[in-house]
Amino acid sequence: MLRIPFHEVEQTLAAILVKLGFAPPRAQTSARLFAETTRDGVYTHGVARFPRLVAMIRNGSVDPAAEAERVSGFGALERWDGRRGPGNLNALAAMNRAMELSRAHGVGCVALGNTNHWMRGGTYGWQAAEAGLIGICWTNTMPNLPPWGGMEPVIGNNPLVIGVPRAAGPVVLDMAMSQFSYGALEKYRQRGELLPVEGGFDTEGNLTRDPGAIEKSWRPLPTGLWKGSGLSMVLDMTASMLSLGKATHQLGSDMLFETGISQMFVVLNPLALGPEPRTEQIADEIVASLHNCKSARPGDRVRYPGEQTLRIRAENMQQGLPVDEALWEQVKAF
Amino acid sequence: MLRIPFHEVEQTLAAILVKLGFAPPRAQTSARLFAETTRDGVYTHGVARFPRLVAMIRNGSVDPAAEAERVSGFGALERWDGRRGPGNLNALAAMNRAMELSRAHGVGCVALGNTNHWMRGGTYGWQAAEAGLIGICWTNTMPNLPPWGGMEPVIGNNPLVIGVPRAAGPVVLDMAMSQFSYGALEKYRQRGELLPVEGGFDTEGNLTRDPGAIEKSWRPLPTGLWKGSGLSMVLDMTASMLSLGKATHQLGSDMLFETGISQMFVVLNPLALGPEPRTEQIADEIVASLHNCKSARPGDRVRYPGEQTLRIRAENMQQGLPVDEALWEQVKAF
Repeated sequence: MLRIPFHEVEQTLAAILVKLGFAPPRAQTSARLFAETTRDGVYTHGVARFPRLVAMIRNGSVDPAAEAERVSGFGALERWDGRRGPGNLNALAAMNRAMELSRAHGVGCVALGNTNHWMRGGTYGWQAAEAGLIGICWTNTMPNLPPWGGMEPVIGNNPLVIGVPRAAGPVVLDMAMSQFSYGALEKYRQRGELLPVEGGFDTEGNLTRDPGAIEKSWRPLPTGLWKGSGLSMVLDMTASMLSLGKATHQLGSDMLFETGISQMFVVLNPLALGPEPRTEQIADEIVASLHNCKSARPGDRVRYPGEQTLRIRAENMQQGLPVDEALWEQVKAF
Repeated sequence: MLRIPFHEVEQTLAAILVKLGFAPPRAQTSARLFAETTRDGVYTHGVARFPRLVAMIRNGSVDPAAEAERVSGFGALERWDGRRGPGNLNALAAMNRAMELSRAHGVGCVALGNTNHWMRGGTYGWQAAEAGLIGICWTNTMPNLPPWGGMEPVIGNNPLVIGVPRAAGPVVLDMAMSQFSYGALEKYRQRGELLPVEGGFDTEGNLTRDPGAIEKSWRPLPTGLWKGSGLSMVLDMTASMLSLGKATHQLGSDMLFETGISQMFVVLNPLALGPEPRTEQIADEIVASLHNCKSARPGDRVRYPGEQTLRIRAENMQQGLPVDEALWEQVKAF
């Protein structure tokens, strides 16, 4: 594993994006988001995802020059067309607009259709929370998860993100609707480990902790079984209905052509109701109550979502971003 | 099991509520919500919950005369004080106000603090969806669930509700953050059945399908394990921060004194962006894609959240609401 300075990762990716047709400031922003994702320890969705973006620009799925534009709006609600532009830039713009709307109306909502994979969903939760706002966003995806009671992957693992502002560092939930991602299954298998709990069905239809068996069956479990399955469905419905964009069942099953997806960005603005010192205190007290809980593992403690991010971020900024050597060779060759 | 006409259930409960201090129209509305919950098959939160409401009025936890009032607002966002009034009436009023705000602003949000148990959360999802609106609401609860990695119940099972309008009948997700409620565990135990999947830890700390062992340990699993645990935390934070109401850790552990809780009602108004026939078509096509999925059980099919409600409703309206005989005796004696 290499350790590469943040700035070098950012500039390397930005230069490639310019070559691929991004305007320089947009290349810079997109590259920064990839580097920040690796910096924050979400390695599956940072530099490691960059080759897939390059492939999708080359095959025409992502239009590097396209910018999201407002289609219609009414008060605090707007519908945007992502024009199949780069997913992270579109999502950043949509969350930014929802934040603006929340400053004008107390609440803001942007429904973004016709966009592309936003890479790390947590990015947009952090974006809102760092501005003192509550950011809630979700996306649909291609069909990659069987619904509860079903044999075929006809629903998406549709990530849901909720970012909560807090002086000591935001709380950011970023959860997909499958209990274990395909990336997680692969990692367990490569380490020769069983999953800590049942993670899906084998090809015989039995629940199993064997990651390889689930990779073969393509039947991972939804998060919370029937519950995450239902949540995935309503996230898909609301995003596609409000954006008038594609629903999961219309997205095909080839990852490299997963384009034209639908996303929602909802921002609640606690500051709109006036300065309120208790707001931060409330979040801090909740965190304290979690930390006081007796831990199931001695020496460990209960964590809130995103709790490790700032520590990992500091470590990676100091030591350099960890990037797989072969991956980095591949990236530099673009 | 008795079968009692809807109207008789409604009138019986309404008369009791008037005796307990409700103004007659409010007694009528609250009684209707209880009867509708049983009518729709959510038996745990309908007539069966009525005795607990009576007890909480008698012990002072619920003030039958208190009405929720607006504390502050800015555009589409309002903060309301539930004044420890009846939880279902407060929630109905808060969702109604969020719906009004969404008609004026495209989006509406009411943060309701100092309220009481809303009984069936799905009620408010149906309320929005039947008006053609997307209703999203959540509540915190007393600490009744150990967080992932924790031994003690310090988080709430904080239900999340999402209602989606559709001509053929709304899609309404109503999910608590524990995989199996205590009510569900009790039912499995009484039937002498194991849970279909692991539902919690026994007192030794081992995962188990034995419902009785989980009832003893008070360690049910969060929905989706670490995921539902994190979702519960951010739902508690957002509701208490925006309402300035109590957080889960401040709610004590006595069910009969679970009062002063915090709730959120967010409404997204697809109609605000103009009449759009595609909206309904999108939802219908998603439902069709689910129904076309190969089922894991021959003869069965994949269902969307709330799919069985209209069938159960029709059956119960025709045959009368199923109410346990001893329960009905208890109710009539109030």
